[in-house]
Amino acid sequence: MQGQQQQAYDRGITIFSPDGRLYQVEYAREAVKRGTPSVGVRTPEGVVLAADKRRRSKMIEPDSVEKLHKADEHIGIASAGHVADARQLIDVARREAQTNRLRYGEPITVETLSKTVTDFIQQYTQYGGARPFGVSLIVGGVTNGRPRLFECDPSGTPYEWQALSVGANRSDIRDHLEAEYEDDMSLEAGVGLALSALAVHDDEEMTPDGVDIATIDVDTEEYVHLPPEEVETHLEKRDLLADDESGDAQ
Amino acid sequence: MQGQQQQAYDRGITIFSPDGRLYQVEYAREAVKRGTPSVGVRTPEGVVLAADKRRRSKMIEPDSVEKLHKADEHIGIASAGHVADARQLIDVARREAQTNRLRYGEPITVETLSKTVTDFIQQYTQYGGARPFGVSLIVGGVTNGRPRLFECDPSGTPYEWQALSVGANRSDIRDHLEAEYEDDMSLEAGVGLALSALAVHDDEEMTPDGVDIATIDVDTEEYVHLPPEEVETHLEKRDLLADDESGDAQ
Amino acid sequence: MQGQQQQAYDRGITIFSPDGRLYQVEYAREAVKRGTPSVGVRTPEGVVLAADKRRRSKMIEPDSVEKLHKADEHIGIASAGHVADARQLIDVARREAQTNRLRYGEPITVETLSKTVTDFIQQYTQYGGARPFGVSLIVGGVTNGRPRLFECDPSGTPYEWQALSVGANRSDIRDHLEAEYEDDMSLEAGVGLALSALAVHDDEEMTPDGVDIATIDVDTEEYVHLPPEEVETHLEKRDLLADDESGDAQ
Amino acid sequence: MQGQQQQAYDRGITIFSPDGRLYQVEYAREAVKRGTPSVGVRTPEGVVLAADKRRRSKMIEPDSVEKLHKADEHIGIASAGHVADARQLIDVARREAQTNRLRYGEPITVETLSKTVTDFIQQYTQYGGARPFGVSLIVGGVTNGRPRLFECDPSGTPYEWQALSVGANRSDIRDHLEAEYEDDMSLEAGVGLALSALAVHDDEEMTPDGVDIATIDVDTEEYVHLPPEEVETHLEKRDLLADDESGDAQ
Amino acid sequence: MQGQQQQAYDRGITIFSPDGRLYQVEYAREAVKRGTPSVGVRTPEGVVLAADKRRRSKMIEPDSVEKLHKADEHIGIASAGHVADARQLIDVARREAQTNRLRYGEPITVETLSKTVTDFIQQYTQYGGARPFGVSLIVGGVTNGRPRLFECDPSGTPYEWQALSVGANRSDIRDHLEAEYEDDMSLEAGVGLALSALAVHDDEEMTPDGVDIATIDVDTEEYVHLPPEEVETHLEKRDLLADDESGDAQ
Amino acid sequence: MQGQQQQAYDRGITIFSPDGRLYQVEYAREAVKRGTPSVGVRTPEGVVLAADKRRRSKMIEPDSVEKLHKADEHIGIASAGHVADARQLIDVARREAQTNRLRYGEPITVETLSKTVTDFIQQYTQYGGARPFGVSLIVGGVTNGRPRLFECDPSGTPYEWQALSVGANRSDIRDHLEAEYEDDMSLEAGVGLALSALAVHDDEEMTPDGVDIATIDVDTEEYVHLPPEEVETHLEKRDLLADDESGDAQ
Amino acid sequence: MQGQQQQAYDRGITIFSPDGRLYQVEYAREAVKRGTPSVGVRTPEGVVLAADKRRRSKMIEPDSVEKLHKADEHIGIASAGHVADARQLIDVARREAQTNRLRYGEPITVETLSKTVTDFIQQYTQYGGARPFGVSLIVGGVTNGRPRLFECDPSGTPYEWQALSVGANRSDIRDHLEAEYEDDMSLEAGVGLALSALAVHDDEEMTPDGVDIATIDVDTEEYVHLPPEEVETHLEKRDLLADDESGDAQ
Repeated sequence: MQGQQQQAYDRGITIFSPDGRLYQVEYAREAVKRGTPSVGVRTPEGVVLAADKRRRSKMIEPDSVEKLHKADEHIGIASAGHVADARQLIDVARREAQTNRLRYGEPITVETLSKTVTDFIQQYTQYGGARPFGVSLIVGGVTNGRPRLFECDPSGTPYEWQALSVGANRSDIRDHLEAEYEDDMSLEAGVGLALSALAVHDDEEMTPDGVDIATIDVDTEEYVHLPPEEVETHLEKRDLLADDESGDAQ
Repeated sequence: MQGQQQQAYDRGITIFSPDGRLYQVEYAREAVKRGTPSVGVRTPEGVVLAADKRRRSKMIEPDSVEKLHKADEHIGIASAGHVADARQLIDVARREAQTNRLRYGEPITVETLSKTVTDFIQQYTQYGGARPFGVSLIVGGVTNGRPRLFECDPSGTPYEWQALSVGANRSDIRDHLEAEYEDDMSLEAGVGLALSALAVHDDEEMTPDGVDIATIDVDTEEYVHLPPEEVETHLEKRDLLADDESGDAQ
Repeated sequence: MQGQQQQAYDRGITIFSPDGRLYQVEYAREAVKRGTPSVGVRTPEGVVLAADKRRRSKMIEPDSVEKLHKADEHIGIASAGHVADARQLIDVARREAQTNRLRYGEPITVETLSKTVTDFIQQYTQYGGARPFGVSLIVGGVTNGRPRLFECDPSGTPYEWQALSVGANRSDIRDHLEAEYEDDMSLEAGVGLALSALAVHDDEEMTPDGVDIATIDVDTEEYVHLPPEEVETHLEKRDLLADDESGDAQ
Repeated sequence: MQGQQQQAYDRGITIFSPDGRLYQVEYAREAVKRGTPSVGVRTPEGVVLAADKRRRSKMIEPDSVEKLHKADEHIGIASAGHVADARQLIDVARREAQTNRLRYGEPITVETLSKTVTDFIQQYTQYGGARPFGVSLIVGGVTNGRPRLFECDPSGTPYEWQALSVGANRSDIRDHLEAEYEDDMSLEAGVGLALSALAVHDDEEMTPDGVDIATIDVDTEEYVHLPPEEVETHLEKRDLLADDESGDAQ
Repeated sequence: MQGQQQQAYDRGITIFSPDGRLYQVEYAREAVKRGTPSVGVRTPEGVVLAADKRRRSKMIEPDSVEKLHKADEHIGIASAGHVADARQLIDVARREAQTNRLRYGEPITVETLSKTVTDFIQQYTQYGGARPFGVSLIVGGVTNGRPRLFECDPSGTPYEWQALSVGANRSDIRDHLEAEYEDDMSLEAGVGLALSALAVHDDEEMTPDGVDIATIDVDTEEYVHLPPEEVETHLEKRDLLADDESGDAQ
Repeated sequence: MQGQQQQAYDRGITIFSPDGRLYQVEYAREAVKRGTPSVGVRTPEGVVLAADKRRRSKMIEPDSVEKLHKADEHIGIASAGHVADARQLIDVARREAQTNRLRYGEPITVETLSKTVTDFIQQYTQYGGARPFGVSLIVGGVTNGRPRLFECDPSGTPYEWQALSVGANRSDIRDHLEAEYEDDMSLEAGVGLALSALAVHDDEEMTPDGVDIATIDVDTEEYVHLPPEEVETHLEKRDLLADDESGDAQ
Repeated sequence: MQGQQQQAYDRGITIFSPDGRLYQVEYAREAVKRGTPSVGVRTPEGVVLAADKRRRSKMIEPDSVEKLHKADEHIGIASAGHVADARQLIDVARREAQTNRLRYGEPITVETLSKTVTDFIQQYTQYGGARPFGVSLIVGGVTNGRPRLFECDPSGTPYEWQALSVGANRSDIRDHLEAEYEDDMSLEAGVGLALSALAVHDDEEMTPDGVDIATIDVDTEEYVHLPPEEVETHLEKRDLLADDESGDAQ
């Protein structure tokens, strides 16, 4: 279907096209692709979340480019796409996690949290009066010592992955992940894989404040945001550290 | 009716075309056809539900491809189509089953559950403000020792079947089911028929983690999800097991 | 009025065309014509309801093709058209009948029930936010020893008939009914007339599980659904029974 | 204004055209013209309501073609146009009449009832979310010994008449009424005039069950529906009785 | 602006055109022009309201053509335009007048009543979901011995006049009023002026039951509807009485 | 952007055009330009408000052409544009002023009142379901001995001015004000400037009842509406008084 | 995408275009660019906010051109774009700051305030019934002795900056800021940088009442609005002071 005909079906938010597609959801996926990539890697020792946070301007504070979010003590969320939309979903996730602790006296499982978020997203694809969310999330964490890693996409479908990326260059990064992933990686190897995956998008060179990394270790079950020094160490080890011409002043 | 004219009637959710059709419902059926197939087979010994759950990527966790769902102790649901929509309907079904137990102190019948779901679906085809559900369900279970197998389609019509499929390749699989179905099959034979039906779509070769099977036995009246080993045995018996080049690592 | 012009008036649910017609209601009537026919015959001894329930596939359970519905002890309803819509109206009718018994301690009259349903239908032709019902009902029963037979169409108009059909082939079947109907028929003759009327649509050959018959006798005032054996006897008597190549297994 | 331009103004329910017309209301009047005519005649002795109720099929029960309605003991209503719409307005009128008796302990006046109905109708011509009513009513009755006869049209305007018709052939019948009406007619002469007015539409020949007549006498102040025998007598007297080839069996 | 372009701005109820006009309000003014004229004249001795109430048919009761309305003991309202709309505004005015008496124990002033009505009208020109009122009112009465005369137009603007007309032939009648009006007219002269103004529209000949006149005298402060005899006398005096061929029987 | 393209953006009330404009607000400004001008002048001795109130017809009461409004004892408002809209905003302003006195026991400041009104106006430019206000206001008054003069335009932006005009001929009048305004004018000189500014629109000749003037003196802090005699004196002094052919009789 | 096609996606407020963009948000950004620029600079000693407030007319009071706003004792906000919209967001910010003091007994942090405002803005980009805000804000202040500087744009995304501008000439001013910014500037140097940044837009010459400057010092943590004399001194020091031909009288 081309041009004028297609328009007939993608103008309305909540209707099907003759071939059974929801264009608004597919366009929301395009909004995700416009965002810099985020990556998740699951290893037996824990989960790694990583995000490209390069800025439009060197005068933007790196910390204010929010791509990684702590949803609860034991769960982190990486996002790609429309930043303002991501903030709304992170807020939903945090409230849900808090409510779970209050109501049941225990931390929410990674799976429950992911599915609560996707069910919330689905509503915006079926009912009128609002547009879908233009963002994809990677929800990673540890439940009862078991590392879990989920994707929440604009259609509201939850999938569990061993390793995945969302955002720009998705298919190239996926090829890299499929080629390099190993079932029995250490958490450190997972960090390395995540960084090399982002490097696919970044033409192989990164700066410590151009990337964000967090891990949730199966032992501590705690979300840990890596300080720039550690990120730098990892980049060096992987030979991904950019030369010094980085103009970022801090 | 062609091109421009057709557009006049399929843009609005809840209106009839001059020939008395509801295009949005028909397009929702197209969404179902875009999904991998699920199959249901009813035998005197119980009901079989089976689903193709091949993944876009081998890094997706097979268990997170949800095509079979336990609705209650004695009822399972297989789905095809828009995954996020299916999750909403499964949720409706589960709440309805729970409410029935609480209110009447007994399990809901398969027929009542199916019709409650279709009545819910119908609302989305008549009222404005939302689109129809892009998913078809197979509801199977045992009521008072009697196996029952229902289809819930996007129009909200409930039909009871001896054996059926929903999703891609529906007519080829139906031909296979009509040819192979026997009234007095054993439950095991039913599992075999379900697998061979899915094989129509899969070009005759399947892997244990590319397919999901569940049964509800008339004796136990319990939903049982078959472990991969059993699935493998069934596939072998039917000579449907794929060669080892399956890249799925686990 | 042709083509482009007509579109201007039939897109909106609740508006009149320049010649005073409600296109959406007329298109809903087309939806009725897409359904297999149902027939009602009123005799001094009682009312006959009959429906063609041939299935798309022999694997569909004949009983799950719902064309005849018991609305109350003394009233039955036959439908033609959009099946899911019919279910909603049947539900309205049943609730109304129950409410009448609870509130007034006596059965609802056939006329009251029919008019309650048509008033409900009318709302969907005048107010925005929903489409009309794509179904016609035949409401038959006995009130105070008097047989009554009503039609409820998509415009919400109630008419009482001696004999009528709704659904496909309506005008041919009506010609047949007008030619064969007699004021003083026995109930059995009424059953025969109903079957021969359906045969107009079915090219003169029917199987017991391809047709549904119910009667409400003026003496018992009870809705009775005829078992397949009796249907077969009636078909034989009328020489309408199909040859044995019927593939339906049960 | 022609073709495409006109469409711009008649699509919306509640807006004016450049020349100050409300097309939806005018189209609703067309719906009235599609209905068989009803007639009202006011004489010093009382009010006559008459309606053509010829049926599409001889198998329709004449009594179920509702064109005359008793609104209260002393008020009748004749309708023309969309039957299902008429039923809603009759219902409004009846409730209003009942409420008046309950609240004030006395019968509602014909004028009050007519204006309550027209005010109700007007709402449907000014507010969005619903279409106008496609029906015109003749409200006739006696208040304090004085015969009154009102018209309620789709615009919601009440007019009082000496004699009027609504529905098909309106202008021909009006010419007939204007020519034949006399201020001092007896009620019987009024019945005759009403029948001869309907005959304008019916090509001068009518059957007793093809017409409905009711009177409200100034003495009794009671709505009386004439039995077929009396109608026949009136038709004979006026030489309007059809020959016997009328196929209506009863 | 012409043809297609104009359509773009007059379809929506509540939006401005590029040149700052509200087309729907202007079209409502056209609806007023379609109505027969009403006239108001203010004299030191009181206010005169007059209306042309010629009927489409001589069988319409003259009294049922409502153009003059008593809003309260001391205030009358004349209308022109869409009759059913006028009835709604009259109702608003009457309720407001009653409320004022109940709340403050004194009659509402003519100015307050006029402005309450125009504020009500304005809402229908700014908010969606309804169309403007297609009617103009002349509100006349006496407040504290002072005669007042206001116009309420479809835009919701109140203007006070010495003498004015609304409805058909407005500009011709206004020319006549401006030419003939005198500051120190007697009330009787005012009646004469009003009649001669209507005669501009009526080609100089009128019948007593083709015109309605009411006065509010500054002494009595009471709305008085003139009986036909008085109207006839006034017409004779002004030499406006039609010849006898008037077919109106009463 | 021209013709057809422009239409795409100005039809919807609350959306931006590609170049970041709100067409509906700009068209509302056109509605203001269609109104006769009003002028405000601030002097150290107080504020002057003046308005052209020439009438369409000499039979309109000059006092009923409301262009100047007393909002509170110490604040006046002049308006230009859609009269019925102005009345709504004046009402909002008066209620706000009253509420302030009741709640805080002191008069509202000119600035607070102006900003309350503009915030109210802004809502009508951002939310659907209503059109913007087609009127601009000049709010003038004295707060704590300090004269203030604000403009409230259809976008809802408040600006404080030394002297300004709204309505027709705005830019010519502004040139005149800029040329003639002096910081240390007396209040009387301010009145003169306001009149000469209006004369720009009126071709230099005015009549006392064709113009309205009000002042708020910093000493009395009271809104004073000038009687026609004073207006005449001012016009004479400025040599702006029209010759006697003014037909306005009073 | 060009012309006609683009229109298909930018007419609806809350939908995605095929390439994943939200046109209404991008057009709102155009509205920002239509506004005169505002600048923020963060130094170790505090935050500087500066705004170009040149007026359309010299008769507008400079103080009424509101570009800098005090949100709380320790936080200021500079705006660019649609003035009336800015006022709404400033109001939201002030209420939020007040609520924080009342609820928690301590001042709100700059980050919390900024994110509350952006979350509020985001709602207007996802839900129907309103348009996005056509304004960008710079929120600057001090939290626990630490200077912070945030941007709130029409998409609802919060970013923290070292120095930034919003409004017209954004990219030229940004180049200037990037070139001139130093990490260890004094607050006074920050004021100078802000002024020279605005001068990029103003062709290098400014008057004290054509610019607004405020600072929040890390020591006092208080929002201070600079008096015209200080602004003049700063302009002189930077050699940006316009020659005397400035006609502004004060």
